Amino acid sequence: MKLLRFKINSKEKTGILNGNEITEINPSMIEAMNTPDINRLEEIGSFKLEDVEVLPPVSPSKVVCVGLNYSDHAKELDMNLPTEPTLFIKPSTAVIGHETNVIYPADSTQVDYEGELGIVISKEAHHVKKDDAIYFIGGYTILNDVTARDKQRKDIQWTRAKSFDTFAPIGPCIETELDPTNQNISLKLNGEIRQNSNTKQMIFNAYELVEFISNVMTLKPGDVIATGTPPGVGSMHVGDVVEVLIEGVGVLRNTVKAQK
Amino acid sequence: MKLLRFKINSKEKTGILNGNEITEINPSMIEAMNTPDINRLEEIGSFKLEDVEVLPPVSPSKVVCVGLNYSDHAKELDMNLPTEPTLFIKPSTAVIGHETNVIYPADSTQVDYEGELGIVISKEAHHVKKDDAIYFIGGYTILNDVTARDKQRKDIQWTRAKSFDTFAPIGPCIETELDPTNQNISLKLNGEIRQNSNTKQMIFNAYELVEFISNVMTLKPGDVIATGTPPGVGSMHVGDVVEVLIEGVGVLRNTVKAQK
Repeated sequence: MKLLRFKINSKEKTGILNGNEITEINPSMIEAMNTPDINRLEEIGSFKLEDVEVLPPVSPSKVVCVGLNYSDHAKELDMNLPTEPTLFIKPSTAVIGHETNVIYPADSTQVDYEGELGIVISKEAHHVKKDDAIYFIGGYTILNDVTARDKQRKDIQWTRAKSFDTFAPIGPCIETELDPTNQNISLKLNGEIRQNSNTKQMIFNAYELVEFISNVMTLKPGDVIATGTPPGVGSMHVGDVVEVLIEGVGVLRNTVKAQK
Repeated sequence: MKLLRFKINSKEKTGILNGNEITEINPSMIEAMNTPDINRLEEIGSFKLEDVEVLPPVSPSKVVCVGLNYSDHAKELDMNLPTEPTLFIKPSTAVIGHETNVIYPADSTQVDYEGELGIVISKEAHHVKKDDAIYFIGGYTILNDVTARDKQRKDIQWTRAKSFDTFAPIGPCIETELDPTNQNISLKLNGEIRQNSNTKQMIFNAYELVEFISNVMTLKPGDVIATGTPPGVGSMHVGDVVEVLIEGVGVLRNTVKAQK
């Protein structure tokens, strides 16, 4: 089932997405992810997708991101496979939704896309084992790990390059029933395919990442894990339209705008 | 003036600290930092410091930290002075208060202290100039940038090493009237001085850091900037008592405990 948050007439709502039809439901997104029989909830409204503003599906306290995590990407870069995930954090202030603009920072000279599968946490997770991870995952979404590559090269530390406002587009929805270990993932820039892989190429899968990260830091309901990007990373320019497509989830679309 | 948050009889309160006397006030910490004539507020209660539990003075959405930022520390490490601050983020889940335990992770072999001055943001800050930074700073606190040095060395990226739960002790209070460019800062481990410097050794001062960081990411009220540590960084062990002392602010004290 696809859950989304949306705004209409200045009110924020939660809904179930079927094609272009939204069925509004009462629970918040976190409650909805933790409701087993959500299909049986009373329908309290009905909208067309094109009539609403799609919001980021959650408001994460943090987005925990994983570096190199696709074996085909490691091969492309001629790098050894890592023995443990490399982590960095994108702040909540970087999060934007579907069809919202990525702002190209005035003092950056290279801004790259990185299409990724996002894991959405539904219950507080602390020292979770990978076999139990599924109970803490509310579903999966799509994420673009936008990166100011010039800043990343200069800093060594990745935080500044990854943390600009608007550098974490997330959405459009959360798919609650998805096998995260075998989904096609691709990215189109202005309609042309630039990344094309499958989540089975992940070096550390979704469940292993929840174990590894929750052993370091408590994950809160609504937190998102960005699971790394496949080969084909490249640059975006002002005016470009970038789409990340994940089989079974949907398409996350954003446009790059200049900083005012 | 020293503002603090505290708990008594299971209720969280805001107060003004004078020596060991707490005067309870009505506004939240964020409101209090933005109230110019706080001395004129009605007193609604009075407590002794030893009778209350001191809470972290704010609940930051993020703690933005600066790497190497003391010229005497750079000299100690025989490193060139950086031309721009190096940033990393500690998640909100790492924050603990004064007299709370730092938990030594079971799989770490070296956990270090790093005493630091913390800048507390009182108003949303986005693209702020250094000359205006003072209007967005509610005050200053003390922070211990606890670091699993073994993980830092292994990962290159600092995030995992710095993000364990309890690795961001903050407090005990916020001093609203402080010159951040000339305060003695020291750290004692089990009563012995290990770090001893002055904030005038900072390579990028508090106002420059607010400009640099707010040019990347929006800072929210309650967010904290950790301004880097002076020379003398070293390791802690289970049972150690670590105190960070900043002239004009106070003493932040924590004990290191083993992970259960």
